[in-house]
Amino acid sequence: MKKKNKKVNAAILVIGNEILSGRTQDKNVSFISSWLNSKCGISVNEVRIIPDLERVIVRNILELSKNFNYVFTTGGIGPTHDDITAKSISRAFKVKYEYHKEAFKILENYYGKSKFNDGRKKMAKMPRGANLIYNPSSAAPGFIVKNIISLPGVPSILNSMIENCKRYLIKGSKVHSKTLNLFTVESNISKKLGLIQKKYKKFVDIGSYPFFRLGKIGVSIVSRSTSKIKLQSVNKDLIKLVRLKKIEILKI
Amino acid sequence: MKKKNKKVNAAILVIGNEILSGRTQDKNVSFISSWLNSKCGISVNEVRIIPDLERVIVRNILELSKNFNYVFTTGGIGPTHDDITAKSISRAFKVKYEYHKEAFKILENYYGKSKFNDGRKKMAKMPRGANLIYNPSSAAPGFIVKNIISLPGVPSILNSMIENCKRYLIKGSKVHSKTLNLFTVESNISKKLGLIQKKYKKFVDIGSYPFFRLGKIGVSIVSRSTSKIKLQSVNKDLIKLVRLKKIEILKI
Repeated sequence: MKKKNKKVNAAILVIGNEILSGRTQDKNVSFISSWLNSKCGISVNEVRIIPDLERVIVRNILELSKNFNYVFTTGGIGPTHDDITAKSISRAFKVKYEYHKEAFKILENYYGKSKFNDGRKKMAKMPRGANLIYNPSSAAPGFIVKNIISLPGVPSILNSMIENCKRYLIKGSKVHSKTLNLFTVESNISKKLGLIQKKYKKFVDIGSYPFFRLGKIGVSIVSRSTSKIKLQSVNKDLIKLVRLKKIEILKI
Repeated sequence: MKKKNKKVNAAILVIGNEILSGRTQDKNVSFISSWLNSKCGISVNEVRIIPDLERVIVRNILELSKNFNYVFTTGGIGPTHDDITAKSISRAFKVKYEYHKEAFKILENYYGKSKFNDGRKKMAKMPRGANLIYNPSSAAPGFIVKNIISLPGVPSILNSMIENCKRYLIKGSKVHSKTLNLFTVESNISKKLGLIQKKYKKFVDIGSYPFFRLGKIGVSIVSRSTSKIKLQSVNKDLIKLVRLKKIEILKI
């Protein structure tokens, strides 16, 4: 039986002035995107980085929620005044922003009643109807409401939670990729490469990325497809091109 | 004379499947954003990462061009089939996509007539009316058309070109920042910090970012403002809070 090619996509909404200002280098986008593709067959098709402003978060949540199967948000679910992700999502969907009973209990147990102050309690407030994404490293849960999955901004905590998102996600067909690293310049192969891309237009995406290694200039040719068979065909055509042009392949 | 507070903003549009898929870690956003703020007083207010698809590029160029003073694009201006930034911008603004005479000459001189093949010639094609952003490291120029500034995706090349963007930019008021690194947890200070933010609402943005250092948990409090005087006032209030709570300051 032929397996059906099922496309499931996602967007990532990075919420945080510190990323926009350049103070902090985002590391969550590549992590989430790689994980979604390899573990769930979900492709990230858009990323946005926006400031901690309610009206901006609301607008982006509504836009992305409509256009993608899933939206992952990172950042803004901590205890301080600039953590307004949960409140803004509630506003976007016009649902109550209130204590989530289970989240409240988890946090109360974690900190102990005497140390469970207002800041910490705030982390239990979520849009009504949210389901929890458990947090094995620092207790405060993320949540999913409609097709929005909200995770924290600290990479180590986010990484520890990602597997707990899986149960909420519909899986798509995995995108396989094959990389050929060539010691050549892009313009030497660009014409033929364009023809190969044209030939496999519907099935394979071919990308060309310059690199500098061992003091030489090179190009990584990355082919991506849900079909392993089509990937092999592309690879054969690429190898033909490489032999024709007498290009050295870099083996890693 | 009181200096007028002039706000100039920008968006960054990262064009490239390799960033979206997680294969490549973007490094240009934090570089461009830091440079724009420190050298030009321009704040980056939104970033989008999108695939190499013409209709997606066209839509995003039109949206961002309308909503921000400047839009910086990165990626997609090389010689291969997946480099479609210049063509897509031409399409967005309904102007011709054609050889830029000066760019053509620069590239012809750089490669020499015999090695100036079709792939390389493609890098001289731009939207009609574009002005060049010179490239001291690998010749192929970026360009500016309307309020869109197009730069390459390779960080070392982009970095070498950024100073050449300056002459096209209107400068804004620089945003100054002050960071206080505290050995405490966010929830210990979140309430008072919220009050300080409220007091300086119109003038200063205060962000709170957890860190882990020397085996301890801490929080960086980052205050940002175009007014150095307001920043000093915030800092005084923060120091009061730190003393009250007997929090250790991490000096770097």
